[in-house]
Amino acid sequence: MSDATRDIEALIALMSRLPGLGPRSARRAVLHLLKKRGQVMAPLAQAMAEVAATARECVSCGNIGTADICDICRDDRRATGEICVVEDVADLWAMERGQSFKGRYHVLGGTLSALDAVGPEDLRIPKLLSRVRDEGIAEVILALNATVDGQTTAHYIADALEGAGARVTSLAQGVPVGGELDYLDDGTIQAALRARKSV
Amino acid sequence: MSDATRDIEALIALMSRLPGLGPRSARRAVLHLLKKRGQVMAPLAQAMAEVAATARECVSCGNIGTADICDICRDDRRATGEICVVEDVADLWAMERGQSFKGRYHVLGGTLSALDAVGPEDLRIPKLLSRVRDEGIAEVILALNATVDGQTTAHYIADALEGAGARVTSLAQGVPVGGELDYLDDGTIQAALRARKSV
Ligand SMILES: [Zn+2]
Ligand SMILES: [Zn+2]
Repeated sequence: MSDATRDIEALIALMSRLPGLGPRSARRAVLHLLKKRGQVMAPLAQAMAEVAATARECVSCGNIGTADICDICRDDRRATGEICVVEDVADLWAMERGQSFKGRYHVLGGTLSALDAVGPEDLRIPKLLSRVRDEGIAEVILALNATVDGQTTAHYIADALEGAGARVTSLAQGVPVGGELDYLDDGTIQAALRARKSV
Repeated sequence: MSDATRDIEALIALMSRLPGLGPRSARRAVLHLLKKRGQVMAPLAQAMAEVAATARECVSCGNIGTADICDICRDDRRATGEICVVEDVADLWAMERGQSFKGRYHVLGGTLSALDAVGPEDLRIPKLLSRVRDEGIAEVILALNATVDGQTTAHYIADALEGAGARVTSLAQGVPVGGELDYLDDGTIQAALRARKSV
């Protein structure tokens, strides 16, 4: 095998390590790129190199941007006294797509986990506590996943914030908008029933 | 939205145009890249830029490599007098993975299509005819897809090669190795039955 094929094979191998792309779909993606070398492949490589060189974590909230302090933390209109705590940047993006939260975020970078030996110092929990104090936060909204580790983490943070003067709330659990009962797991149905409201 | 977020959004948009990646999986892939900026994202951008800059189509067979004449066409051991005709580079790769064809290829770049107004001159058919003559080819193996357009193209090529002195064959149709009859379409079962062999 010559260098030519080796370069293309190496690219396929790198692509196949992306989540959602197996070896087969990585091959198809690379073939598509090879056919659109000028219009797609070169701009994609360029965009990727630029983001790789400039991306960094916000020192305040853990969001990913290209400056030490991210856009959201720099935006004064988002100093609403509310912090939404999420596990991951993906969850922050999901909240932003919802377009209803106007405050700032705090990205933990995971959840507490006895099994994986993840303690509060491994996450951004100490920084959260200092932000609540320093930024005069009135409400901390816990938007953690409804998993055992997510809920353990939520309880830990709620305890740690006791006496800090901020209200601690969490996202409501229930039936997703447009969700069909038939497809929901039992836990969701139980939670939705417990949290039922008058109509 | 600042430049930071715009760069990341632009990267997601470019990634989501790859086959097999929708907007959702493109976001997940970019997030993964953002978390592995040094180990994965920068090397991937680099590999992609290099391939984009060097990849080109072989002037003889249409395969993609990094030289005017591809590895397979340069390899004298592959001058077996056989040419395998495929629609696309993806099919060439699939044949090579099979590791049983030892000759050279000819990539048509599509199939004849009345609907899409694709004629013989739009494919590499004239070049195939001259290769069969100039390279002293004894057998042309048609490995075209079992679609209507693929089969129309196969017949066209077989007709065009009449009198050229090369035997024209095509891949056998039948039950895939390990394939369960239950999951096969009727056409495959019919073809396999027609081509049945004594055991
Ligand atoms: Zn921030
Ligand atoms: Zn070639």
